[in-house]
Amino acid sequence: MSFDPATLTFDAAGLIPAIAQDAENGDVLMMAWMNAEAVARTLETGRVTYWSRSRQQFWIKGETSGHVQELVEMRVDCDRDCLLLAIRQTGPACHTNRRSCFYTAIRDGVEVVTMAPEAG
Amino acid sequence: MSFDPATLTFDAAGLIPAIAQDAENGDVLMMAWMNAEAVARTLETGRVTYWSRSRQQFWIKGETSGHVQELVEMRVDCDRDCLLLAIRQTGPACHTNRRSCFYTAIRDGVEVVTMAPEAG
Repeated sequence: MSFDPATLTFDAAGLIPAIAQDAENGDVLMMAWMNAEAVARTLETGRVTYWSRSRQQFWIKGETSGHVQELVEMRVDCDRDCLLLAIRQTGPACHTNRRSCFYTAIRDGVEVVTMAPEAG
Repeated sequence: MSFDPATLTFDAAGLIPAIAQDAENGDVLMMAWMNAEAVARTLETGRVTYWSRSRQQFWIKGETSGHVQELVEMRVDCDRDCLLLAIRQTGPACHTNRRSCFYTAIRDGVEVVTMAPEAG
């Protein structure tokens, strides 16, 4: 079946969550949002492109930082309201310079930072 | 720092997306939603508990199907608006009886089902 981004289920703002997973080691690196056009651009260009809710514009991941995400495969979930992106991540995915945005664990009711920012 | 679910960033409906990842092999199994109370219950009980948007009630995953999710570790992202759950999944996570909800890949512009439902 040919894929049409318009067949996805978007929220009231026209967005769908997209989970970026490292294609090599399976680490979940970040979650951000796409609209239908961002989905189409990501598939066309192979460069992961989100929709920035704060800036209200397309956000080609890494365009300014160089920390680009190359799409390996896009997956859709059973409800068609969430995307999973297998990617190749250049540099850290997180704006804090950590490899993943999920660097804070809850252990015994306490927040523990599990990951240091990368050098440089 | 002691963890208080109220310090998370919830959307207008009071919800936060929670990504469930297989703690053993790293597979992303599903994404669902939690409110602050669901986060607290999940941490207290070790049984992953979402908020069902369709039924507007707590959803202890697997309560009827037996396909429970045991929490191994909860992580919070840098913006505190997304959760990552490392879990031990009993049986399939997806209501279609597949291991993961992300069984449809987009390959060369075409939807490809990559996973069969489990037997039984």
